[in-house]
Amino acid sequence: MKFHVLTLFPEMIGGAVDHSILKRAADSGLIEINAINIRDYSADKHKSVDDYPYGGGAGMVMQAQPVYDSWESIVSEGKKIKTIYLTPQGQTLTQDKVKELSEEEELILLCGHYEGIDERVLEEIVDEEISVGDYVLTGGELPAVMIIDAVSRLIPGVLHNDTSAGTESFENGLLEYPQYTRPETWHEKTVPKILLSGDHKKVDEWREEQSIERTKNKRPDLYDEYIKSGIQ
Amino acid sequence: MKFHVLTLFPEMIGGAVDHSILKRAADSGLIEINAINIRDYSADKHKSVDDYPYGGGAGMVMQAQPVYDSWESIVSEGKKIKTIYLTPQGQTLTQDKVKELSEEEELILLCGHYEGIDERVLEEIVDEEISVGDYVLTGGELPAVMIIDAVSRLIPGVLHNDTSAGTESFENGLLEYPQYTRPETWHEKTVPKILLSGDHKKVDEWREEQSIERTKNKRPDLYDEYIKSGIQ
Repeated sequence: MKFHVLTLFPEMIGGAVDHSILKRAADSGLIEINAINIRDYSADKHKSVDDYPYGGGAGMVMQAQPVYDSWESIVSEGKKIKTIYLTPQGQTLTQDKVKELSEEEELILLCGHYEGIDERVLEEIVDEEISVGDYVLTGGELPAVMIIDAVSRLIPGVLHNDTSAGTESFENGLLEYPQYTRPETWHEKTVPKILLSGDHKKVDEWREEQSIERTKNKRPDLYDEYIKSGIQ
Repeated sequence: MKFHVLTLFPEMIGGAVDHSILKRAADSGLIEINAINIRDYSADKHKSVDDYPYGGGAGMVMQAQPVYDSWESIVSEGKKIKTIYLTPQGQTLTQDKVKELSEEEELILLCGHYEGIDERVLEEIVDEEISVGDYVLTGGELPAVMIIDAVSRLIPGVLHNDTSAGTESFENGLLEYPQYTRPETWHEKTVPKILLSGDHKKVDEWREEQSIERTKNKRPDLYDEYIKSGIQ
């Protein structure tokens, strides 16, 4: 899978994906990350990429031309690639959306900065607007890296253990059960006895109960959906 | 403000905050980021930090001891510092929570990896669990960097223009209005005339209408809250 990232800070993309699981996935050719500096496409002799907003107000707005031209450099060969703009305006990212995106062969992730991007170029090139949550960040770079991370781990071969992605939070609409590892006693707290029983069926039942209980307590909204879904 | 990050991948923290606004904020002493490698606190001679989960299942679980000892290295001087565990189990981050966190002098951000952290140490040290959204990432590092980013930009002096943080999405419960910058005509699309009128009152009214309209179309959930809040 190939991720093209249109950004004013390509080094933020490179740095963040140069570790851990994403690095291994890139090294083994399972994913490819192509960070493109929008500034390189400025037609202006000073390589400027932003200007004051029409109508006044604080901050600067990214101009249509360099954004469009950087985008066109990717799709110029006639490829149709889904273009996602990372913005608090977008639909909120969920694990279902992550799964949907993991089925694409390529993605273009457009990162805004400052007070945003000229609306006209967004109308022209953007297929989907995605928000990672209801909070404000300094730019779209961290959300882009998060999408790369969340999507990549669903690509077969990226995680060490292919079963690992299937047993985590949200996979069945529930939060994950508590985990324990050695030693059996730590700070006078012991591991729940059932986990030491060797009875796999009982362990599974206990874990499911814990998942349900936690979801009910910590995320009543998810619990309501779980009940409505009829999975149980 | 000082952010302590407990992580197995301190280089992911360093790399991500070494650019743009966060770098400037760190250089000018407004924020300080202290990434601590949990592995350095392993009491094991092989410096191991994880082990198999009790009860079986895929993946590895981070052990209580190195997590606890790395945390204790920060709070050992008797300081009470809010400790946040980044986990899909937590309450969902919102801009209101970001504001609340920006009032702390120091924060400890604990990043999990693999299949999570032994529940017993979480019970002992964690004050709050926060999730950045309903999707699964390879670890807590990106969420930690997002919290640092979102919180830092609310610290006076971090943004170039202090008024800038007040006019963005979510600040009044609405999404932001569309922005335009030069040139007046691009790809045969012109800037809305009202923005060129010089009539500040009309510009403000138009922007507010646009914000309301967008929120209604793109995020009916936020629009409902906005109506209920009685702000308008």
